[in-house]
Amino acid sequence: MCRWLAYSGSPILLDELLYKTRYSLIDQSRHSRFGVETTNGDGVGVGWYGQDGAAPALFRGVGPAWGDLNLRELSGAVSSPLFLAHIRASTGTPVQQTNCHPFRYGGWLWVHNGLVRDFERLRRDLMLAVDPALFPAIVGSTDSEVMFYLALTFGLRESPVAAVERMAGFVEETGRRHGVEDPLQMTVGASDGEQLWAFRYSSEGASRSLFFSTAVTALRELYPENPRLQGVSDETRIVVSEPLGELVGAWQPVPESSYGVVRQGDDALGDFRPRMP
Amino acid sequence: MCRWLAYSGSPILLDELLYKTRYSLIDQSRHSRFGVETTNGDGVGVGWYGQDGAAPALFRGVGPAWGDLNLRELSGAVSSPLFLAHIRASTGTPVQQTNCHPFRYGGWLWVHNGLVRDFERLRRDLMLAVDPALFPAIVGSTDSEVMFYLALTFGLRESPVAAVERMAGFVEETGRRHGVEDPLQMTVGASDGEQLWAFRYSSEGASRSLFFSTAVTALRELYPENPRLQGVSDETRIVVSEPLGELVGAWQPVPESSYGVVRQGDDALGDFRPRMP
Amino acid sequence: MCRWLAYSGSPILLDELLYKTRYSLIDQSRHSRFGVETTNGDGVGVGWYGQDGAAPALFRGVGPAWGDLNLRELSGAVSSPLFLAHIRASTGTPVQQTNCHPFRYGGWLWVHNGLVRDFERLRRDLMLAVDPALFPAIVGSTDSEVMFYLALTFGLRESPVAAVERMAGFVEETGRRHGVEDPLQMTVGASDGEQLWAFRYSSEGASRSLFFSTAVTALRELYPENPRLQGVSDETRIVVSEPLGELVGAWQPVPESSYGVVRQGDDALGDFRPRMP
Amino acid sequence: MCRWLAYSGSPILLDELLYKTRYSLIDQSRHSRFGVETTNGDGVGVGWYGQDGAAPALFRGVGPAWGDLNLRELSGAVSSPLFLAHIRASTGTPVQQTNCHPFRYGGWLWVHNGLVRDFERLRRDLMLAVDPALFPAIVGSTDSEVMFYLALTFGLRESPVAAVERMAGFVEETGRRHGVEDPLQMTVGASDGEQLWAFRYSSEGASRSLFFSTAVTALRELYPENPRLQGVSDETRIVVSEPLGELVGAWQPVPESSYGVVRQGDDALGDFRPRMP
Repeated sequence: MCRWLAYSGSPILLDELLYKTRYSLIDQSRHSRFGVETTNGDGVGVGWYGQDGAAPALFRGVGPAWGDLNLRELSGAVSSPLFLAHIRASTGTPVQQTNCHPFRYGGWLWVHNGLVRDFERLRRDLMLAVDPALFPAIVGSTDSEVMFYLALTFGLRESPVAAVERMAGFVEETGRRHGVEDPLQMTVGASDGEQLWAFRYSSEGASRSLFFSTAVTALRELYPENPRLQGVSDETRIVVSEPLGELVGAWQPVPESSYGVVRQGDDALGDFRPRMP
Repeated sequence: MCRWLAYSGSPILLDELLYKTRYSLIDQSRHSRFGVETTNGDGVGVGWYGQDGAAPALFRGVGPAWGDLNLRELSGAVSSPLFLAHIRASTGTPVQQTNCHPFRYGGWLWVHNGLVRDFERLRRDLMLAVDPALFPAIVGSTDSEVMFYLALTFGLRESPVAAVERMAGFVEETGRRHGVEDPLQMTVGASDGEQLWAFRYSSEGASRSLFFSTAVTALRELYPENPRLQGVSDETRIVVSEPLGELVGAWQPVPESSYGVVRQGDDALGDFRPRMP
Repeated sequence: MCRWLAYSGSPILLDELLYKTRYSLIDQSRHSRFGVETTNGDGVGVGWYGQDGAAPALFRGVGPAWGDLNLRELSGAVSSPLFLAHIRASTGTPVQQTNCHPFRYGGWLWVHNGLVRDFERLRRDLMLAVDPALFPAIVGSTDSEVMFYLALTFGLRESPVAAVERMAGFVEETGRRHGVEDPLQMTVGASDGEQLWAFRYSSEGASRSLFFSTAVTALRELYPENPRLQGVSDETRIVVSEPLGELVGAWQPVPESSYGVVRQGDDALGDFRPRMP
Repeated sequence: MCRWLAYSGSPILLDELLYKTRYSLIDQSRHSRFGVETTNGDGVGVGWYGQDGAAPALFRGVGPAWGDLNLRELSGAVSSPLFLAHIRASTGTPVQQTNCHPFRYGGWLWVHNGLVRDFERLRRDLMLAVDPALFPAIVGSTDSEVMFYLALTFGLRESPVAAVERMAGFVEETGRRHGVEDPLQMTVGASDGEQLWAFRYSSEGASRSLFFSTAVTALRELYPENPRLQGVSDETRIVVSEPLGELVGAWQPVPESSYGVVRQGDDALGDFRPRMP
């Protein structure tokens, strides 16, 4: 099991969220409070967009996040308006850079918490369904990466929510064909550099935790004296596996089987319904 | 904080103790039950003696023990009559191979759980006291390694218990000179390939846990049906930071401020009294 | 491009061949003399059989061989009658443990020097041809590993030479279908713990170098005074990408498009002819 | 032996110099042309100043530079007006992050190519001369780091050239006291974020190569058509262990036993004369 975090808003130094919050992501690598596993020490990664529309950059380390000095340095030096970070607890696949999230394809980033059950048995069928033109880009061995390439195959770049629903439907169908009960467990974060999608779903209807931050304008009314809240833009949103602090009213759970979109203008929340591609 | 284990007895595959016990050392790397920290993910090491009197060999990995595939392979292929293993939770010094235990000098191995408090401030004075002929052999940056070289300086090879008592006395004296309260916290395992010493001490009189296995002959009487106990030699002993299983009567705590020696013939237990070198 | 070495004979410490020869494999990691690339710094591995018929053990490191302290320690402590070692120079796939040779399946080991040209484009078709029951065992991303699983699919365990010929034929056919000229370049070493096979082949008829050691009995006649030669059994053979020393008459090139078998009784050499599975 | 590079000028993406030049530093990690060793595969590091006066950030990797994906990503995403980069070929000390250059203290960065001869024997005396207040900051085991802390001890922050001369004098004096011939071999780069110093010196008067780029204004006259030269500011300077390209007139060797300063206004070049502290 893993933990992840996504930020969209005024450009901030990465370490503001990765290190400096009450229950920061890096802190969660050693002591997760909400997770199935309390330790997420099998790698760490962050992908960040610049302010210039270039493809996002990646940093991925194979050691525990809490001891990664390069990540700490980088996080104190790099600002970004949109980034995704992930700490990994392997569910069996090797601890190596190519298995660290975020995964990237073109301008897209993808992070995942959860698993495809019995992935070893399903892997071949899932990989065969990936568009042959995308196949060479799969360089790791995780379920999460195959899920990403299935979503890309099913139209992530054109119609993100429908594509992820098709991916989920296909994984479930494949699982059932192999006699796997409850094949899919996931929270997923994805972005193209402009919008940010978050998905919460599991075949068994008991998905891993996922939260999004309350609109900053609402929070400012609640806490007019809080300087942190005054400094960020109205559009700022954070999506996280577990809350980064204890500010009452600051975090909302993403409902079961639903998705959210963070974007300029109004954000949106909707039902997530797996379907066949 | 760390965890360690030492074995002396009939040659066994390393994985018998590192992986296959109920609460194995590798299991403790993720979920320690007795430790101050529950995660010991900052490196792992094992040093083992062969049956030929050669200098001991070392394996040290910088990642978490639970994910170290080389250690797992090695442990299933290498047998030894005497070995020390260690999992690390850094108390501030870098995660790197030269900071992983065991430390080795000539035919000696050394593992440590605990810390020299305010080591940064004491480090220079402690290093200056190391025999200049030994100084070049210090290649890491931990308190544990400096403690080992101080013990060597003070006669570890000639009179092990007295030398470790002098080391402890010197560390405490140096600490007090710098205004450090309770400078030393330690359980230490050391061996020259023939005997195995275990020390439990702390300035504050509240030392980290340490256990040794009950004599096998006594255990066999208690559990005449247990095949594991029949297979090992009468001389077999294990010293551990925390028990490897729940067999009643199998584990005895090492008393506060004391040491034990495992050797051919009768083992011994005695008081540990820091003294000035 | 890579370098590899295989040994079969009297049990010896691994470091006898890995470190102590004139042009040892570890020395080749920094200064190869025969290779296309002079540096082979993208990982190292050794797989060794014990004397008890157990599955072989593996050590694989991702750093340059010349600086791997664990390999040096291990090599000085582990003896084996049959082992394969490999140093890697990546042809594009990531530097990670799962891409380090030897690859292992059950009791089999496999090392490869060379490449499948345009592997990115061929990879999907090659992977699809792997027996679905073997597919989950593919955990890395190299051409070499896929070649191994194709050979296993085509009968490596029953008829090793024919299976490798089928693998080569299938890779060439797949390459040609995709318009790849000269798809395959390889020297391969493989063993089941009893016999040792070496293959030298390339589509273009200009294969990477491969040598085997002259029969020890012949060498002893040439060099009656050499103590090294007196110490090893008559059956001892070494296969290497490049000679480990300059003893005249000690090394024979494996001919183009041929294979050799090292086994108890007479060794054998034969033509290698790719064929369709 | 190592290679390094320092840049001062208009802010540029790090990869402009680290990857995109004809003989880039990363290329030199595999095939150095001027070095004693042709491979510099024992680690890599870069330290860069931002545009805000904050302390410089570090990235240091222990694998070969040519395969470091994080460095490649970072270099394509981070711009800096002043940075130092280094690739390492160990002269015996361990390959670990704390031994990778640049070393940093406060706002200062330090890179070194060369060695203190017989450093093992001199190390204790050299470390004892380090200001006790600075001593705890030494976390690695290289000669280069001790040289840095000696220079800091002798006034690097107040009078950089004199301090480095005192460091060199002290190393030579210490070496001679121990009977070491030609104790010091060095090219050193250092910066406080505003100025950049380069030193070339060796006890034997045969120092490792060091070059600085010709003034851009002079180059523009020579190559009026070269777009690269038009894009950078007049103040831009590069100091390198070996030239990054073959543009005639673009690179000047730093003379034996001399130093240079790159700064706003006129740069300066002077004699380097070791002296006792």
